[in-house]
Amino acid sequence: MTGYDTISFLSDYGTTDEFVGVVHSVIRQLAPDAAVIDVTHEVAPHDIRAGGLTLARAAQYLAPGVVLAVVDPGVATTRRAVAIEVGDGASVMVGPDNGLLAPAVSMVGGATRAVTLTNPDLQLEAPGPTFAGRDVFAPAAAHLCAGVDLSELGPEVDPAALTPAMIPITRLEGQSVVAEVLWTDRFGNLQLNVDPSEIETFGDRVELRFDGRVRTGIRHDTYARIPTGEIGLVVDSYGLVSVAVDRTSAADELAIGTGDEVVLTPLGDGDRPAGAVTAVTLGDKP
Amino acid sequence: MTGYDTISFLSDYGTTDEFVGVVHSVIRQLAPDAAVIDVTHEVAPHDIRAGGLTLARAAQYLAPGVVLAVVDPGVATTRRAVAIEVGDGASVMVGPDNGLLAPAVSMVGGATRAVTLTNPDLQLEAPGPTFAGRDVFAPAAAHLCAGVDLSELGPEVDPAALTPAMIPITRLEGQSVVAEVLWTDRFGNLQLNVDPSEIETFGDRVELRFDGRVRTGIRHDTYARIPTGEIGLVVDSYGLVSVAVDRTSAADELAIGTGDEVVLTPLGDGDRPAGAVTAVTLGDKP
Amino acid sequence: MTGYDTISFLSDYGTTDEFVGVVHSVIRQLAPDAAVIDVTHEVAPHDIRAGGLTLARAAQYLAPGVVLAVVDPGVATTRRAVAIEVGDGASVMVGPDNGLLAPAVSMVGGATRAVTLTNPDLQLEAPGPTFAGRDVFAPAAAHLCAGVDLSELGPEVDPAALTPAMIPITRLEGQSVVAEVLWTDRFGNLQLNVDPSEIETFGDRVELRFDGRVRTGIRHDTYARIPTGEIGLVVDSYGLVSVAVDRTSAADELAIGTGDEVVLTPLGDGDRPAGAVTAVTLGDKP
Repeated sequence: MTGYDTISFLSDYGTTDEFVGVVHSVIRQLAPDAAVIDVTHEVAPHDIRAGGLTLARAAQYLAPGVVLAVVDPGVATTRRAVAIEVGDGASVMVGPDNGLLAPAVSMVGGATRAVTLTNPDLQLEAPGPTFAGRDVFAPAAAHLCAGVDLSELGPEVDPAALTPAMIPITRLEGQSVVAEVLWTDRFGNLQLNVDPSEIETFGDRVELRFDGRVRTGIRHDTYARIPTGEIGLVVDSYGLVSVAVDRTSAADELAIGTGDEVVLTPLGDGDRPAGAVTAVTLGDKP
Repeated sequence: MTGYDTISFLSDYGTTDEFVGVVHSVIRQLAPDAAVIDVTHEVAPHDIRAGGLTLARAAQYLAPGVVLAVVDPGVATTRRAVAIEVGDGASVMVGPDNGLLAPAVSMVGGATRAVTLTNPDLQLEAPGPTFAGRDVFAPAAAHLCAGVDLSELGPEVDPAALTPAMIPITRLEGQSVVAEVLWTDRFGNLQLNVDPSEIETFGDRVELRFDGRVRTGIRHDTYARIPTGEIGLVVDSYGLVSVAVDRTSAADELAIGTGDEVVLTPLGDGDRPAGAVTAVTLGDKP
Repeated sequence: MTGYDTISFLSDYGTTDEFVGVVHSVIRQLAPDAAVIDVTHEVAPHDIRAGGLTLARAAQYLAPGVVLAVVDPGVATTRRAVAIEVGDGASVMVGPDNGLLAPAVSMVGGATRAVTLTNPDLQLEAPGPTFAGRDVFAPAAAHLCAGVDLSELGPEVDPAALTPAMIPITRLEGQSVVAEVLWTDRFGNLQLNVDPSEIETFGDRVELRFDGRVRTGIRHDTYARIPTGEIGLVVDSYGLVSVAVDRTSAADELAIGTGDEVVLTPLGDGDRPAGAVTAVTLGDKP
């Protein structure tokens, strides 16, 4: 084992302060040959769920190596700092044990090993206890790239005892699928926690109920094919059903966003067998 | 030919979602030795003109290699995905054929060859059709860095048949030059589509008409020499005439912005020969 | 001397325009092997003090090499462009001589040599005089990485004649410390210019006066230990006293921000010896 060569870095640090640059600088000094790829640092402050979903969407596309993820409202409390190995060592995910890493860990097949980051020799001395990204997580990620074995970072913990993810799943109510907006992207598209198979029997026209209002969504194969004035239902680039409007923001148009409930009901003749509801498989390739 | 070593990447993806990080990750895996330089990802969503102008301003300063540019409202429709060679192979510009690349292509001397990106073996399989940056453009850029020849990406197309740029040019009305704001920069400076030679004979004081108002602009050689309370006309760092106010935003001060019309008329004694109007040569060095 | 291998880059350029990408591109061509780490580019336009403090907070964590810092309202006037050597050549800081670099220079032990950047052979020819980051500072930083000696950039200047920093220091008024908010971070924490030793004798409860209001701050060892509804005083990750509220923004909660005055007075029984006031030592490790 000679270490990893890429660190994929996600956080809620923003890029206005120097936090991200300092983490890069710490890594540069401990593992000068590692490439650091910024996934995003604009996760809303302390939003563990949004950070976890972002990481899960990205997970299958990330270069094998170390994932460094920091959304950490409980920094310097009893929450554990962990490194979670996946794929029998193909990659290691480093961050707080607060559910942030869990969706991505599942996405790539589950944890094969995990340790808590308690070895002070592999951390920076800090003037204050609150910047764990700089003092604990970045050094761990860098040392893994420099060839340090996972087991040197701290004692093993049972992967089954790690904090699980809280991903909302759909539920069936009569013919309807009660869904939730997982993510509002930059273009205002509303990703639902709905696998296309869940609405396979719904036909092309689907009733959408949200916030006391009712609209009709039409299934299309891509955003740009949605006629002006129409609400589209598109399978997005992660394989989930997304509510979209062509060249404008569906979120603005419908005045809903991440976390809001959307109820989908078939319109027209199709009857839907109850057994067709499947689990969400976010971003899973065929 | 052993490929290129630098990818300059511009998009309207923003940095809040994981899009940019995923594109970097795809490149990292297909061309681990390529350096990726982010030009900007904050082009307004779907704003092809602004993206094209930004790329044109940057073009002459970019490292030779691959330019990857994605502002793509027509993704997954009939718009073509293309790679455009410039300088007989000095660089290749990869993106949608919607006019985005055209200003930069002209800036560096025009296309010498072009292909459409249709070879599925050099693309990623996608769960949905809408993230061409990840699935089509980034792989093409990376394969070019890894030594794949342009011709392997897909069939040649006539460079003359590529979608042209839509750059507004000035027009002469009597003694006046009718101009347009091309770009409002971070500091609120308003770049006009006016070459200094177009107002060479105007003298130091120029009447500015915009939005029904009239103000006087004074020519200065740099922003910091504009006296407080005065509106300056400065040749900006790309060689175009810019409306500026020292240490504050001219855009805020004058309440105008990108796309707005500004009419420049000489004040005082200078008469202006009609033949002095020249084409805009954005950013061209002497 | 074979040059430096890392450039740490801070500016007020923002990332919406192409400025940062162009600077990276210029460096890439002059020093292809140098790694460029972005500290931040979201310093408020022309805010020399904020840029200087940001750089000072980051300074001790940056990789040895070149620091490139550009917040430059006086570009192309008589303000000098400089390169300041620190640590007898361990690092060189490149930027305008307007006080921006001064706090970071002090933080790492002071200047050992300085030159003005006047050698036109080591600059880019520019169509306009206003983008010194691209045309003057980036080339200087890159040439230093490529092995050019500091003395080739221009004539030496006396480090003592460089523009000093303007960092506010606390003052004592009776038992009170009159402080100022140095920095409001992304999470809304308010860093004061107060070393923990200055309020060592204050006990756990401290009266905070600001903007005509009075509140009580309670000392805690980390943000997450502050009870809901309480205002905490925490030693932050740079070793200074910070006003914080758990999981929400103290800046929003108290409606104060950077530059505002906060007066700290002991509550309860503790008397405070006047001699306990010490100089601010921002970020200095024990």
